Amino acid sequence: MNNRKLKMGMIGGGPGSFIGAVHRISAAMDGLIELAAGAFSSQADKSAQTGRELFLPENRVYGSYDEMFEKELQLPEDERIDFVAIVTPNHVHFDPTVKALKNGFHVVLDKPMTFTYEEAKELDQVIKDTGLLFCLTHTYTGYPMVKEAKHLIATGVLGKIRKIYVEYPQGWLWTDVENTNYKQAVWRTDPSKSGIANCMGDIGTHAFNLAEYVSGLKLTKLCADLNIVVEGRNLDDDGAVLMKFDNGATGVLMASQIATGSENNIKIRVFGEKAGLEWQQDDANTLIVRYPEGPDQIYRTGGNIPYLSSLAMENIRTPGGHPEGYLEAFANLYRNFARCLYARRNGETPKKEWEDFPGAEDGVRGMAFVEHVVKSSKSDQKWTNFEL
Amino acid sequence: MNNRKLKMGMIGGGPGSFIGAVHRISAAMDGLIELAAGAFSSQADKSAQTGRELFLPENRVYGSYDEMFEKELQLPEDERIDFVAIVTPNHVHFDPTVKALKNGFHVVLDKPMTFTYEEAKELDQVIKDTGLLFCLTHTYTGYPMVKEAKHLIATGVLGKIRKIYVEYPQGWLWTDVENTNYKQAVWRTDPSKSGIANCMGDIGTHAFNLAEYVSGLKLTKLCADLNIVVEGRNLDDDGAVLMKFDNGATGVLMASQIATGSENNIKIRVFGEKAGLEWQQDDANTLIVRYPEGPDQIYRTGGNIPYLSSLAMENIRTPGGHPEGYLEAFANLYRNFARCLYARRNGETPKKEWEDFPGAEDGVRGMAFVEHVVKSSKSDQKWTNFEL
Amino acid sequence: MNNRKLKMGMIGGGPGSFIGAVHRISAAMDGLIELAAGAFSSQADKSAQTGRELFLPENRVYGSYDEMFEKELQLPEDERIDFVAIVTPNHVHFDPTVKALKNGFHVVLDKPMTFTYEEAKELDQVIKDTGLLFCLTHTYTGYPMVKEAKHLIATGVLGKIRKIYVEYPQGWLWTDVENTNYKQAVWRTDPSKSGIANCMGDIGTHAFNLAEYVSGLKLTKLCADLNIVVEGRNLDDDGAVLMKFDNGATGVLMASQIATGSENNIKIRVFGEKAGLEWQQDDANTLIVRYPEGPDQIYRTGGNIPYLSSLAMENIRTPGGHPEGYLEAFANLYRNFARCLYARRNGETPKKEWEDFPGAEDGVRGMAFVEHVVKSSKSDQKWTNFEL
Amino acid sequence: MNNRKLKMGMIGGGPGSFIGAVHRISAAMDGLIELAAGAFSSQADKSAQTGRELFLPENRVYGSYDEMFEKELQLPEDERIDFVAIVTPNHVHFDPTVKALKNGFHVVLDKPMTFTYEEAKELDQVIKDTGLLFCLTHTYTGYPMVKEAKHLIATGVLGKIRKIYVEYPQGWLWTDVENTNYKQAVWRTDPSKSGIANCMGDIGTHAFNLAEYVSGLKLTKLCADLNIVVEGRNLDDDGAVLMKFDNGATGVLMASQIATGSENNIKIRVFGEKAGLEWQQDDANTLIVRYPEGPDQIYRTGGNIPYLSSLAMENIRTPGGHPEGYLEAFANLYRNFARCLYARRNGETPKKEWEDFPGAEDGVRGMAFVEHVVKSSKSDQKWTNFEL
Repeated sequence: MNNRKLKMGMIGGGPGSFIGAVHRISAAMDGLIELAAGAFSSQADKSAQTGRELFLPENRVYGSYDEMFEKELQLPEDERIDFVAIVTPNHVHFDPTVKALKNGFHVVLDKPMTFTYEEAKELDQVIKDTGLLFCLTHTYTGYPMVKEAKHLIATGVLGKIRKIYVEYPQGWLWTDVENTNYKQAVWRTDPSKSGIANCMGDIGTHAFNLAEYVSGLKLTKLCADLNIVVEGRNLDDDGAVLMKFDNGATGVLMASQIATGSENNIKIRVFGEKAGLEWQQDDANTLIVRYPEGPDQIYRTGGNIPYLSSLAMENIRTPGGHPEGYLEAFANLYRNFARCLYARRNGETPKKEWEDFPGAEDGVRGMAFVEHVVKSSKSDQKWTNFEL
Repeated sequence: MNNRKLKMGMIGGGPGSFIGAVHRISAAMDGLIELAAGAFSSQADKSAQTGRELFLPENRVYGSYDEMFEKELQLPEDERIDFVAIVTPNHVHFDPTVKALKNGFHVVLDKPMTFTYEEAKELDQVIKDTGLLFCLTHTYTGYPMVKEAKHLIATGVLGKIRKIYVEYPQGWLWTDVENTNYKQAVWRTDPSKSGIANCMGDIGTHAFNLAEYVSGLKLTKLCADLNIVVEGRNLDDDGAVLMKFDNGATGVLMASQIATGSENNIKIRVFGEKAGLEWQQDDANTLIVRYPEGPDQIYRTGGNIPYLSSLAMENIRTPGGHPEGYLEAFANLYRNFARCLYARRNGETPKKEWEDFPGAEDGVRGMAFVEHVVKSSKSDQKWTNFEL
Repeated sequence: MNNRKLKMGMIGGGPGSFIGAVHRISAAMDGLIELAAGAFSSQADKSAQTGRELFLPENRVYGSYDEMFEKELQLPEDERIDFVAIVTPNHVHFDPTVKALKNGFHVVLDKPMTFTYEEAKELDQVIKDTGLLFCLTHTYTGYPMVKEAKHLIATGVLGKIRKIYVEYPQGWLWTDVENTNYKQAVWRTDPSKSGIANCMGDIGTHAFNLAEYVSGLKLTKLCADLNIVVEGRNLDDDGAVLMKFDNGATGVLMASQIATGSENNIKIRVFGEKAGLEWQQDDANTLIVRYPEGPDQIYRTGGNIPYLSSLAMENIRTPGGHPEGYLEAFANLYRNFARCLYARRNGETPKKEWEDFPGAEDGVRGMAFVEHVVKSSKSDQKWTNFEL
Repeated sequence: MNNRKLKMGMIGGGPGSFIGAVHRISAAMDGLIELAAGAFSSQADKSAQTGRELFLPENRVYGSYDEMFEKELQLPEDERIDFVAIVTPNHVHFDPTVKALKNGFHVVLDKPMTFTYEEAKELDQVIKDTGLLFCLTHTYTGYPMVKEAKHLIATGVLGKIRKIYVEYPQGWLWTDVENTNYKQAVWRTDPSKSGIANCMGDIGTHAFNLAEYVSGLKLTKLCADLNIVVEGRNLDDDGAVLMKFDNGATGVLMASQIATGSENNIKIRVFGEKAGLEWQQDDANTLIVRYPEGPDQIYRTGGNIPYLSSLAMENIRTPGGHPEGYLEAFANLYRNFARCLYARRNGETPKKEWEDFPGAEDGVRGMAFVEHVVKSSKSDQKWTNFEL
């Protein structure tokens, strides 16, 4: 089974999709995965159009994911898709994911996990029950320097963690672009597609996931202030959250879509008893480690960098100074997912570094985060317990 | 009276003082002010020692500020000090300032204004009553690019302000350095000298002042989380504050002394309906203005930069690319104070740019900020009204 | 013919190759090209091993490029490879490229074009004679912000160009790593594989190409100083070149492999009568444009950036702030090559933006550059004319 | 004699002067020096005007330096000036400096040392003969991080030095501003006031001095290309120099006044057998040290930074993160000069760190540099020996 690429079926990602192309590029990059089928749109003609543009044979392009599951199962095992990539808006996450899993297909799912927290918990159970592989694309944890940050903290370089600052300032919703037919904005600001939160669901969850991933800590209490800044919106487009973690550390999370002129510079700073560190997407190939009594250090990604951990090294493609970016970070999720899938098929134990991709627990916690920040934001009480 | 330098008497700034030297350098820099007298320490021998080191004549060095006021008043008007610079720890701000003013001396006072909020209000009244000049050294508002930021916002370049992020991460109290006889740490962490807050009083007030100064907004509500991170401390060494402003904008303030490895990179980001801006002390000569639909712009300080406002230009000494720093920002407070004092003596109206130095209102608001963050931090209620 | 991916055969890129993987990732990324065959090594077993790792069918993996050409031509046109990617060391560029072209295969060739300048001129003639597509992978011209720089200069934003600084500082040959069996170092420092220059051929040509590409100028005179710094080497590992261009502008080119601790931060600065600009690989998604009398501007790459030229926009995959890197720049060469190949097959005129990939002229000029810097370096005369 | 400030007389620095104010601020900053007299202009009324603005008594303001020397010598020793600061254009350096020295006054002189190389050698002899203190204001060597760089190299952290890149790109002469009555531009572009070089004399010498200072190496050969870019000029406004040093290292020096949009970002990179380092004025408080096999390190200035050398520490005024800039670097020259002068008067040996300010040897070498780059630029020979 190891003698061919893994076959991927895509759900969503039709005309106008941004994230569909990101998934396809990321999956293709390392030569481990081929796009073999797709239900790219709930409109059959649009699905077919995308299929043609992607050079798929007509008979592997479907008008619905139900059809895809049915037809693919009729193919010989070696021809059929091995897993699906689900890149639909939030309200179309739960159903195709559950069906995929129940039909025996592994799943890569775009975040957030589901439309509601309840769905997330239910899906988590399905994942557990089927025992299949599940990857949730919290992209930023795919960056090698984010992995190195995790490694440094996990191995005690920073000492006990005391403080986390994490932020995701965007400016793209600075005005009501959703009224200009901008597809990305339309669904994200629509409660029927996005869920109970927009900004916090879309990017707040990324920041939250990054904070827990890097620090190894778990959120226990929060105090949120969500805002609707642009008139006419029904969901938050800005917010800030004070946080308390399970080891006593505190933190601040800031996410905004109205930080006018800002792009996507998600950034994390973690401070411990011995040292601090800082990473940001705008300088993604660099990790700064700060010391109280010695020179700060500049960690750099690169396949030839001798001091990096295996956790970082397994997620690098180029030598130092040839920058890798967002697509490579995304591709790391796919590559690790694929490596684990190969290992499973060959009855091998995957490297632990490969298993380090976001999954069901991240998804459930992310949805719980959304649930709790919305609850906290409506509360007069300062602190809301974060409980799953 | 304009034909000589202004004469300054200093209170505090004896052996081991950091901020005393900063005031002296800043006052001396532009050739408008000379140090003419001092009560540098409450111990007469230490005061005398500092006086000698500063080349002061023995008869102008005093063992107490009371003595200084008394003796200086006996000198002919043209010889006596024109104003005092008070650089003592917080608990010795109120008394010498009130006495100086009541004796007819103008005052430059290190921040925060007083030991308690009550003192601040009382001092404010004394300042009003005497009509003398009063400068509170919120240094960071002295940076030309901070002034340019204020100008850009005041003139509508950013549109209505929606969001403010302001942060002051330090790491110098990452461990209990106050137990190593480190004078700066000893008094700041001592409630009897520092007041009800350490981190929030020392640097939180700077961040708060910077936010209100740059944005032109006033705080109306806050939600604070203060922490004592290093064991054995009696005052906060870390904190974060959610803020609401009078125009509906929201903000986040982060101040810490346990952000291990951090120096003094106070930073502010302000986002409006039309544009955003960003300034930080580590790149103090640069102001980034971010636009939603055009290239971001890099404003730079420099006496030869043709596009800067007069508010910035009045606070610059070198051409672009010859960096000015903290001492020059500090010196801008002194220079503007001196220019206003000269104007007053000559019966002239000072330029409005010169009057743009922090004063009593900043001081009272700063002490109210300390009062309210401490109150909020102890409260279970999310929001505390900010009321003077 | 447009209804399938383009089929690529690779020559070189076997075990231990760095650049082979870069080509494969770049070719795969956009879903336009599939690796269909390969002669990965002149040792058949190594070629076969690489073929298996890449999931190629055994019958499409060859022990030599001669065999590949022969066998592929026997396949039906729609099955056989459309083009070859040649990623061998410099001394194995000419022969496979000429044979590929003469057998009707388009070619993507790693730089520099050939082993000698004479070969380059001969190959140029073959390319012209066959009329086939030829891409030389001067990667850095694939960056969107490099293309934007070219556009700004071409459209007069900088006015007449006066000065060019271009530099490529590396540190990886800081000591004799070629004696540690480091494959990349071994062949590059070996005159029998690298040619008459090492540093100047490997990275000097990149810098030279970048300078001519961005500025639109042509080199006319040069004065070179090449050095062998690490003892025991036979080829330059460092050098600097003074340059004169056809419009009277001058320039400086610095390339080094012994700039200890440096990675791959190729950087270019161009100054004209009206403005200047600056780009560097370490901040590849940013282009700084400097003005003498107004704020500098920060151009940023991103599919949603409204002010970018079509030349940049055709080479972008992600929104602003989701960084693209080296592999995406490399992939832009492949994507443009592929787009032109599709257009050719469909009898369509490609967009001029697609045709903007480096080709034979860049290759010949690059080899001439190597020839002339070596000649100049040996000369006592200051200036050497650059003549093709 | 140690019980008063040192008294400074200034020559030049009248209306319209930039550098005069810089000298005065720098001299005043640390409270060691007071401006006591001046011959600010060769026009007596202008000199008097400047004297009044600086609060000098009328009888200490002179219409010529000859008058100043004469009258000051008539004052009691404790009242008269101790040294002169000479801030005139280049053609008025030699005469007042020689006369000052011969009249027993120590001298701080703005660079370059003299109008011609011959003058420099003659002046050097006078300095030697009189045995008085002489400081030449090569400002950039006053930065603490430049001193730290020197220290790291001198103590072997970089190993044997192999390569130096030094650059000083300015853009302020991008067009013929000298025709707009811009005083700074008028004299610098006028051969009768500036000497045989403009760009190379004004900023090329700074870059050259910085390179020799930091590296500890001495230039032995050079190959220069000087350009007059803006039409109508009589002196170079741009140039580049290839260099060879006495230990076999090579280097590149780039200086330009037509690097449009550039400010004053003088930058140096030095690479050795073991490590490299990088410093630039735009980030003056930071020194990057690069290692081939470990993380790069960020050295930072600051009075509380525990790892800095005494050479740096003696030149710092603020804690880490409170940036110091150009004026503080300049003031370091004055402070060290003053410390040495105090020590001499007290018959004490100054700390070797204090003696580390630029002097006659720097001045002679700087003038030789100007002489040789002009000679080289006119030569067809590639290399010109650098011989004093």
